[in-house]
Amino acid sequence: MLDFTFHMPTRIIFGAGRLAELGRTRLPGRKALVVISAGGSMRRTGHLDKVLALLAQNGCATVIFEKIQPNPVLIHVDEGAALARAEGCDFVLGLGGGSTIDSAKSIALATANPGSYWDYIQSGTGGRKRPERPALPVVAIPTTAGTGTEADPWTVITREDTNEKIGWGDDSTYPALSIVDPMLMVSVPPAVTAMTGMDAFFHAAEAYLSTARQPSSDLLALEAVSLISQFLPQAVKDGNSVQVRTMLAWASTAAGLCESLSSCISHHSLEHALSAHHPALPHGAGLVMLSLPYFEVMARFQPKRCADLAVTMGEDIEGMELREQGLALVTALRKLIAAVGLDGLKMSDYGVTREEIPALARNARETMGGLFAVTPVDLREDAVIAIFEKAYR
Amino acid sequence: MLDFTFHMPTRIIFGAGRLAELGRTRLPGRKALVVISAGGSMRRTGHLDKVLALLAQNGCATVIFEKIQPNPVLIHVDEGAALARAEGCDFVLGLGGGSTIDSAKSIALATANPGSYWDYIQSGTGGRKRPERPALPVVAIPTTAGTGTEADPWTVITREDTNEKIGWGDDSTYPALSIVDPMLMVSVPPAVTAMTGMDAFFHAAEAYLSTARQPSSDLLALEAVSLISQFLPQAVKDGNSVQVRTMLAWASTAAGLCESLSSCISHHSLEHALSAHHPALPHGAGLVMLSLPYFEVMARFQPKRCADLAVTMGEDIEGMELREQGLALVTALRKLIAAVGLDGLKMSDYGVTREEIPALARNARETMGGLFAVTPVDLREDAVIAIFEKAYR
Ligand SMILES: [Fe+2]
Ligand SMILES: [Fe+2]
Repeated sequence: MLDFTFHMPTRIIFGAGRLAELGRTRLPGRKALVVISAGGSMRRTGHLDKVLALLAQNGCATVIFEKIQPNPVLIHVDEGAALARAEGCDFVLGLGGGSTIDSAKSIALATANPGSYWDYIQSGTGGRKRPERPALPVVAIPTTAGTGTEADPWTVITREDTNEKIGWGDDSTYPALSIVDPMLMVSVPPAVTAMTGMDAFFHAAEAYLSTARQPSSDLLALEAVSLISQFLPQAVKDGNSVQVRTMLAWASTAAGLCESLSSCISHHSLEHALSAHHPALPHGAGLVMLSLPYFEVMARFQPKRCADLAVTMGEDIEGMELREQGLALVTALRKLIAAVGLDGLKMSDYGVTREEIPALARNARETMGGLFAVTPVDLREDAVIAIFEKAYR
Repeated sequence: MLDFTFHMPTRIIFGAGRLAELGRTRLPGRKALVVISAGGSMRRTGHLDKVLALLAQNGCATVIFEKIQPNPVLIHVDEGAALARAEGCDFVLGLGGGSTIDSAKSIALATANPGSYWDYIQSGTGGRKRPERPALPVVAIPTTAGTGTEADPWTVITREDTNEKIGWGDDSTYPALSIVDPMLMVSVPPAVTAMTGMDAFFHAAEAYLSTARQPSSDLLALEAVSLISQFLPQAVKDGNSVQVRTMLAWASTAAGLCESLSSCISHHSLEHALSAHHPALPHGAGLVMLSLPYFEVMARFQPKRCADLAVTMGEDIEGMELREQGLALVTALRKLIAAVGLDGLKMSDYGVTREEIPALARNARETMGGLFAVTPVDLREDAVIAIFEKAYR
């Protein structure tokens, strides 16, 4: 029988051009640590200047922290927190992709609490302490459509010296405010559009299969899966349509809502192990590499739910047996991956070797074991290894 | 193009038997004003004793305020606020139907601010002051499936001496916590089940038509409309199925989410005028009485949206012209009203006279004019009068 908890307190301002509201909306503080990536794209695109001007217009002081890497790491979280503390920042604003906004959340928690951020991590080598205080308020301004981190409390940080990529989140790491402005996403290059879009796709598809699902996440998941299947190939071919970017931004935010209301499943655990060991591997690419054998297993044990996803992606399953109906999801997924130009991805291109697979399978469970608990299939170590083996090229 | 704000910060604990969590979940204060109706049903059903025991178990002190009427009135809000202030309550818990929970919200605002609650009302004879402080935290425990007030910030209170029934709400009147336990709804009698269920139906249908709609409210509105059409007739016939009560409780909460993410339209303004002048008229009954001529107008101007609702209610519209497709909603609605036994409702039975109609039309706009602004059709005074005239029996 229906049984769930619904909680997603973030105020999300969504729409083309609505970044302007940063200049007049009520902010959760008076001095922001503005977190951006080290790559310089926020400067090149002019997004940083725009955000700084709007914050100034709103009477808000700023300190810039410009060190975040594509797979964000612990040392930068602790460094950002030290800076925020030294400068007396009272909130943290993340402007960028998922890695930047995740870092903003982690910095916000670490700033408000003593010691290292890793002291509060609850698995792997984490210190398993409970935070004494809530995180500083977070404002999220995503510039890619993918992670959904603007609509959930989760943040994923890698500890480099132990190859651990671990998620964290509590009520205080929901952004207080997220501004999702598709205009900021028009300049995202095709490969990043494809990989971040597929990340959003998997958030939705996994939330739909998760045992943590609830009616609202089911509705939003199917919406996101439908929009991404329809519009992502188009956005990869031509990124300039604000209309297409808007549909994908909403799909990504809807999938983020799903991560608050339901949960990812162990597909994400497997990927985290992969990119923890190989930080140059983008998260979305790792998910795509693992997805066909992973969802083949899901289709075997959850054919009905997988068939729903397949139909939502446009597959005709009429006349098929239930088993085939479920497997239609794998067919649809294979087509989508090809349509967004990611069918050539190979683990070996990122330096992954077959020999690592047992260690990766172990890492997946040690660092992100929680997601196995909400996976609708009991995936043992040998099954995880088999998925990695099938996915390896 | 897509443009919206998503905000609904309430934590909703939903499921049969989950009231028990009131005994251990983190409460937003240490001393609750427990607001219940004057009718005694919370004592007769044992709900009050259970809630008091759970609060005590959670280390929370309580003061009972037992005066709320079916159409809650200003004097009881001010009286409840005086009691909460005198007793030093730091949060307000509403246990009961919509009138009780709405009263809890209004009392929570009035307790935290000087003067009368009416000083903060923004239309009609309201004082139009801005509250100096946020409302005390509110906990909502609904015992009917209808108002959706557990998932929105809105509260509707009547000022008796001027016949004004006016809504209010801000970020602080979202419940901090709502516990929706369908077990509490099993004992609701058939007529109340029908009327509250139809109220929820209209929240969803109106939110789907409102110009304030957004993708999430569209999804939730269709979900609620579908579930209510399917299950309400069953619950009216036999209220004992926890499964059926659970589906209706979720439908009502989903429709409440719609009131946060989208908005009711002027159908609700017209009803408020009616029950402000005739407090014995239940809100759901008033809505049903007005609905056929009201939605006939909507169908004329918004045939596509109305057709969506009709299809969701099970109407076959294939082969129809667009105009007819929209009107299929009126057909479906007529069937639903009959199926839940409300097709015999007459305004004259509640003392409404034809002569009042112009005054009612005026009252609707003066007190609840805001909902006309989000109605997808420009409804002038003569159109409103015509709806009242057609609905009058
Ligand atoms: Fe992801
Ligand atoms: Fe209502």
